Amino acid sequence: MWIYEKSLERPVKISRPDPAFAKLVITQYGGPDGELSASLRYLNQRYSMPTDKAKALLTDVGTEELAHMEMIAALVYKLIEGADPKDMEAAGWGGQYAQHNHGLFWTDANGVPWSAKYIACLGDPITDLAENMAAEQKARTTYEHLIDLTDDPCVKDTLRFLWQREVVHFQRFGECLNDVQEHMSKMNTWCGYEMRK
Amino acid sequence: MWIYEKSLERPVKISRPDPAFAKLVITQYGGPDGELSASLRYLNQRYSMPTDKAKALLTDVGTEELAHMEMIAALVYKLIEGADPKDMEAAGWGGQYAQHNHGLFWTDANGVPWSAKYIACLGDPITDLAENMAAEQKARTTYEHLIDLTDDPCVKDTLRFLWQREVVHFQRFGECLNDVQEHMSKMNTWCGYEMRK
Amino acid sequence: MWIYEKSLERPVKISRPDPAFAKLVITQYGGPDGELSASLRYLNQRYSMPTDKAKALLTDVGTEELAHMEMIAALVYKLIEGADPKDMEAAGWGGQYAQHNHGLFWTDANGVPWSAKYIACLGDPITDLAENMAAEQKARTTYEHLIDLTDDPCVKDTLRFLWQREVVHFQRFGECLNDVQEHMSKMNTWCGYEMRK
Amino acid sequence: MWIYEKSLERPVKISRPDPAFAKLVITQYGGPDGELSASLRYLNQRYSMPTDKAKALLTDVGTEELAHMEMIAALVYKLIEGADPKDMEAAGWGGQYAQHNHGLFWTDANGVPWSAKYIACLGDPITDLAENMAAEQKARTTYEHLIDLTDDPCVKDTLRFLWQREVVHFQRFGECLNDVQEHMSKMNTWCGYEMRK
Amino acid sequence: MWIYEKSLERPVKISRPDPAFAKLVITQYGGPDGELSASLRYLNQRYSMPTDKAKALLTDVGTEELAHMEMIAALVYKLIEGADPKDMEAAGWGGQYAQHNHGLFWTDANGVPWSAKYIACLGDPITDLAENMAAEQKARTTYEHLIDLTDDPCVKDTLRFLWQREVVHFQRFGECLNDVQEHMSKMNTWCGYEMRK
Amino acid sequence: MWIYEKSLERPVKISRPDPAFAKLVITQYGGPDGELSASLRYLNQRYSMPTDKAKALLTDVGTEELAHMEMIAALVYKLIEGADPKDMEAAGWGGQYAQHNHGLFWTDANGVPWSAKYIACLGDPITDLAENMAAEQKARTTYEHLIDLTDDPCVKDTLRFLWQREVVHFQRFGECLNDVQEHMSKMNTWCGYEMRK
Repeated sequence: MWIYEKSLERPVKISRPDPAFAKLVITQYGGPDGELSASLRYLNQRYSMPTDKAKALLTDVGTEELAHMEMIAALVYKLIEGADPKDMEAAGWGGQYAQHNHGLFWTDANGVPWSAKYIACLGDPITDLAENMAAEQKARTTYEHLIDLTDDPCVKDTLRFLWQREVVHFQRFGECLNDVQEHMSKMNTWCGYEMRK
Repeated sequence: MWIYEKSLERPVKISRPDPAFAKLVITQYGGPDGELSASLRYLNQRYSMPTDKAKALLTDVGTEELAHMEMIAALVYKLIEGADPKDMEAAGWGGQYAQHNHGLFWTDANGVPWSAKYIACLGDPITDLAENMAAEQKARTTYEHLIDLTDDPCVKDTLRFLWQREVVHFQRFGECLNDVQEHMSKMNTWCGYEMRK
Repeated sequence: MWIYEKSLERPVKISRPDPAFAKLVITQYGGPDGELSASLRYLNQRYSMPTDKAKALLTDVGTEELAHMEMIAALVYKLIEGADPKDMEAAGWGGQYAQHNHGLFWTDANGVPWSAKYIACLGDPITDLAENMAAEQKARTTYEHLIDLTDDPCVKDTLRFLWQREVVHFQRFGECLNDVQEHMSKMNTWCGYEMRK
Repeated sequence: MWIYEKSLERPVKISRPDPAFAKLVITQYGGPDGELSASLRYLNQRYSMPTDKAKALLTDVGTEELAHMEMIAALVYKLIEGADPKDMEAAGWGGQYAQHNHGLFWTDANGVPWSAKYIACLGDPITDLAENMAAEQKARTTYEHLIDLTDDPCVKDTLRFLWQREVVHFQRFGECLNDVQEHMSKMNTWCGYEMRK
Repeated sequence: MWIYEKSLERPVKISRPDPAFAKLVITQYGGPDGELSASLRYLNQRYSMPTDKAKALLTDVGTEELAHMEMIAALVYKLIEGADPKDMEAAGWGGQYAQHNHGLFWTDANGVPWSAKYIACLGDPITDLAENMAAEQKARTTYEHLIDLTDDPCVKDTLRFLWQREVVHFQRFGECLNDVQEHMSKMNTWCGYEMRK
Repeated sequence: MWIYEKSLERPVKISRPDPAFAKLVITQYGGPDGELSASLRYLNQRYSMPTDKAKALLTDVGTEELAHMEMIAALVYKLIEGADPKDMEAAGWGGQYAQHNHGLFWTDANGVPWSAKYIACLGDPITDLAENMAAEQKARTTYEHLIDLTDDPCVKDTLRFLWQREVVHFQRFGECLNDVQEHMSKMNTWCGYEMRK
């Protein structure tokens, strides 16, 4: 179970409201490679991991991704603070106002709602860790694209922090993959799987 | 942010593995009215709530629903423990084995992946609380259906606990709705909304 | 069965074509909280209602929502009348022209096609009426957002009429809920449900 | 607008409850080629048709498909009447009981919720009528498959009636296509379209 | 199986980059009536066709649609060549940059990912050919809309070529339908189907 | 463009029809980690790869996956050959018969239609190759699960061949990743990405 602590993992600041960028950065909230995808992917895979260490890592990272999700939510909310209907429409985000006003929603930058089809769990630890390493790369790349799309130094700062965390998670999943492969005595090939009969 | 505590909100026991029931109860993990829907709905709506008390309630209940999600995950995982491919197929859940083996996944009882289309956030506190009250009723009803579908007293016990929590949440959202309506000075009708110009 | 009567429930007028607003208001045609959602939700739930009065109300409101759907269709169609490809693109609705020209389609304001995932039927009359009351609040709120997004007094007039009807439906579902709760003799709590064995 | 008349287009009878067949026939309620697809496809396309006769046909057939949708709903509801949780599970439809009890829902035979992605409106009368002729063939074929899957003579009788209506609709859309092609003076090929500049 | 030949079916040229049009024309890559829909629809239906000639036609056209898909991909890629983040955003396609940079993706003009719900296979040759004839009309119409939306003569030239191919495919499917109907000795009506018992 | 060669990459044999296994193995046709996902993922990513060698590999593997898709199609079609409606229903695949008869369709083992949400293209070569390596692991694991679910030695033989190809593709993508990383002179970390400003 989880205990909520009433502070963000890291404070989120912006220089000025920017609904046009809010429309883009929301993809890291509810898009294919965003923080919700990350968190649910890892928390879900815990059960079929073979070692306590691997289970602990997935719990740990999955929980941190919940905190990142909250940081993105705070960022989006600040970026649209005070924006009236005309501001939202001018920013190309009239659909957001029509359907959610200033409420958040789990979509990508085009307004497509989040789907579990974005993530995977095969129940094979090697495979699921490969999925996770790819996922961290995809999240990392999305942050790079978003950093390119804003000029606000405060926003860039938040995005760079989150970018950095994805790099760290990628490395931790890589180490975990090595541990798990070592643990599994059935290694026929370097990636640790064997031919079924 | 959230801190993980390594224990379930309440221990989950089963009398015997039962993959056929696992296939059904998974709807409370990744189905339309399950614990993921509940948690994401509430945690997402916090931002547009008008009072600190309402924000706190949504955080509180949303966080508890994460714990329920974890209880359902533990339940499903135990119900399929030791089941081999033929057991899964005999239970009508060969598709689960083919696609996930013993790994969990966010689907309903038919294998349809979770979608954010199941939940709503309109950014209007009265409306969002009405959405939540309906959501608790839907979760409550799904637990009743599931209780009808199992004979295992341990499983029934877990489901009854979760059922009870939905009833409590429903009541808390009802109280919150009253508070919020009182807070909003613009009430033209009992449900607190006014005619736009 | 239904008989078609060749007139709108209420005439729909506009002051001038406005494809940019058509792109937004179409969410009440094929979006999550629009008239299609409303109509299909109610017409579908009739079968599991316990009293003839409740069945009749759902039929009645579901049928009226079909008429509202037709009013929104007429409104969207008028708002794009005479718009050429460049007008549509300038209004941010080039995707509509590319895929549908002046033909209508069941999407939200972002172009996401309608899905039955937006609506629910649990087969429990208390729950399904709570779902409907929340649905009317969501439709009501969406109309408020749309009224904020247009300056056309004729369009506002149509939207206010539809807003008003949602308020009335909400009240009628509330009364129906009271009737149904009274009808059901198994009330343990105020919302009329009992603990399963 | 529509007026509801409290009788089915044609009475629906069954010889005995049969939840296993209910699970299959529901595809004509909420599946890709079912009555909901038909009704929404035609009612939506009316606006971009070039002649009053074509508009009237689409309204006429679209309204009749609403009545067929109601017949399928009545059929499904009767087929599961009196079925308890264990009956539903034995029929392979435990997922229905878990999520909807005896309430209906807009899905195909696998439990996939209805989506507007199943239907089309291109805003070109020739194309939209071709879409409709194909749609009637798909509905006709699905009824043939369903007739093969039941032994109940009463159920077969209802399905044959609906089958027959699809054949008639197909023919009426074919005649309409001829009318519309004649009406359009721009015919370069037999199917009535011309090369854009 | 397929052998790849390293050349486009027909060279693709553009006069100048145009990300705003790339955003629209991508619907023929991953939208409802685009080349992916066409190719997968035909290649999938081959198995249930009754004659070798029909199987060969579906294989032939399905394979050509793969080549068209590649032409559209090349077109989109050229139209965004050299566009930086600000160019993409100015063209209303910031969501593309955020999520894919210059990588392609299978979506429609609104960013909705491709779904197999767009296509059909009923396993009945008459019906499946009617589906295909409608599909060619829908693709043909979409190309007409796109031709209206661009002023670039090179782009128009490519789109007209693809338009022309859809017309040819439509005619070939029509001829195939005649052949198949002739082949099937069970013809009760002109479209070749019979009443099931 | 592609040239069709009228033979399978490798002949597909079965010992006996087995619709129950057809229902499961179809996930490698239209499921999340099946051959369609593989083929479309690779063919789509070609455009944003930095070297000709990487482009060629993606084309090569993407084209081979089309051939595997065809092998799975042939396998499914043989496994249901001669199965009548009652056989299909007894195998738990009545929904297939109702909706497609013996026609194939792009779904997973639960009947969920294929969606492009299963695949990714970020436009970053490192990331896209990581995505592909994970994809090959997921396909490999799914084949292992399917091998566990059948006793037919001929079917196992086909599945083992396809399994083997996934292993080879995984290795080739790994080598390609090394090449691409070497090619990119901007490497700050071992996985080749740098901090954006």
